[in-house]
Amino acid sequence: MSKILVFGHQNPDTDATASAYGWAYLERTAWGRDAEAVLLGEPNEETAFALHYFGVEAPRVVENATVEGVNQVILTDHNEFQQSIADIRDLEVLAVVDHHRVANFETANPLYMRLEPVGSASSIVYRASKEAGVDLPREVAGLLLSGLISDTLLLKSPTTHASDPQVAKELAEIAGVNLEEYGLALLKAGTNLASKSAEELIDIDAKTFELNGNPVRVAQVNTVDIAEVLERQEEIEAAMVEAMGTENYSDFVLMITDIVQSNSEILALGANMDKVEAAFNFKLENHHAFLPGAVSRKKQVVPRLTESFNN
Amino acid sequence: MSKILVFGHQNPDTDATASAYGWAYLERTAWGRDAEAVLLGEPNEETAFALHYFGVEAPRVVENATVEGVNQVILTDHNEFQQSIADIRDLEVLAVVDHHRVANFETANPLYMRLEPVGSASSIVYRASKEAGVDLPREVAGLLLSGLISDTLLLKSPTTHASDPQVAKELAEIAGVNLEEYGLALLKAGTNLASKSAEELIDIDAKTFELNGNPVRVAQVNTVDIAEVLERQEEIEAAMVEAMGTENYSDFVLMITDIVQSNSEILALGANMDKVEAAFNFKLENHHAFLPGAVSRKKQVVPRLTESFNN
Repeated sequence: MSKILVFGHQNPDTDATASAYGWAYLERTAWGRDAEAVLLGEPNEETAFALHYFGVEAPRVVENATVEGVNQVILTDHNEFQQSIADIRDLEVLAVVDHHRVANFETANPLYMRLEPVGSASSIVYRASKEAGVDLPREVAGLLLSGLISDTLLLKSPTTHASDPQVAKELAEIAGVNLEEYGLALLKAGTNLASKSAEELIDIDAKTFELNGNPVRVAQVNTVDIAEVLERQEEIEAAMVEAMGTENYSDFVLMITDIVQSNSEILALGANMDKVEAAFNFKLENHHAFLPGAVSRKKQVVPRLTESFNN
Repeated sequence: MSKILVFGHQNPDTDATASAYGWAYLERTAWGRDAEAVLLGEPNEETAFALHYFGVEAPRVVENATVEGVNQVILTDHNEFQQSIADIRDLEVLAVVDHHRVANFETANPLYMRLEPVGSASSIVYRASKEAGVDLPREVAGLLLSGLISDTLLLKSPTTHASDPQVAKELAEIAGVNLEEYGLALLKAGTNLASKSAEELIDIDAKTFELNGNPVRVAQVNTVDIAEVLERQEEIEAAMVEAMGTENYSDFVLMITDIVQSNSEILALGANMDKVEAAFNFKLENHHAFLPGAVSRKKQVVPRLTESFNN
């Protein structure tokens, strides 16, 4: 059997990276398949912190599977084709391990698909490894823990599932870290925005969603000080406009999320600001508005946008 | 929490019925949810045989969930919306338990989705019940066994997964039946076509697939004598033409499957017969052609049609 590539979504975050790394490990160890974890982009600073902490070399970046001579792939932490590898429509998707909604996903053949509405794709990989009777090495457990911490903001996001705290506890034990201490250090590593250009900032964690035919870019940055990010509003808006022009996004919605207070400021531009305002029942002033208690793109932002765009 | 409806696809076959019945049982027993198995149409003769054999009353037929006051549903043995309940787009899909390709399926929220490329959805329900530590009563095991036998033609179809024979063995033991004897009796109960009008015959096990924008109807009937079915070609074709007119199918492909010899005759009409011929590399003569070794719509017919229609 030829090689199988395993990867998370474009603009990989820690959960995308960890879940792919962990699942490829399972494929090799539990099921004897020739699976390699790769990334669809360079790791962000938070992910780089986790990789370095657990002594794991970053998986290589791949942009096209066909040119690698590969035609079978496994997707983790995503299923929507526009978030996947460039030639996804030419490939056979053998499996999907994910915790998002399903959309823009189609196969010609039956496949293995394991989606659970839990806090991270890494949580599912961990559960699968237990079911398969695989003992995870420290660094795999550490990465999976990082994916779970990252996606749930240390178990504080409403995306946290009732089963996730126990998963975090077990993973922290195997990884030999203190959950709270390691978790805060990991999240803080991802909030260093000062070193980033505005173009980089709006691309740290950005996904495109087809909302009633409109390609809407929804990006998120984590910070400990929303005001500090808004000081750069002018250059950030210029970068958003530039990206909309180049990539034909109808709209660009940026969540600036305070990971300590668990709130977000929404900065938005584009053709459908009436839909965005209706989605959150707020008024954008100078292109932005406060969204108290919102930290989850998946659970608190995209569903409301989807509904509003469909009305 | 309000009631959850659990159902298989339209034109329910034995696996659609059994997997819904079994999964609803699990929802109630293992997870304490108020779940009811229903059908999207009357059970066929094979399914009626299985229900009667194990003393189970047929689940009631429901056509619309909203009018039942229900807005949360679980799909078994299908995911494509055009094969589902009429108002599927207005409902929240909580879970999918299936063994088909994924297409025309979309949710606004994360969900539980468990797809495995195994012989039947019933196989997955059985595995889930073991994982949940639930002891299945005889009649639930018997129905799940019937679903597996039906979908794999007694483990002879290429859709049979390596894990299915063991599942069948365990289920037969719980159900207290001899696998071969019960299996043949079940399959034969579904081959009584003489009592059916041509309209009924082409609707026993029929699904619609969107192939490159074309709504293609692919139906299958089981028999022990293909020639006997072809004697009725004229009235069957009339029924196919009638259905294409009423339902706007671009094409109608009927598989007449010999369950003993494991072959099929393809009878096809419609706008894209060049695509159908290219799919199977045969020439239709008088609208039909022989497809040796083909018994699986899912594995041997739909993928080839999909590829051919996309070319």
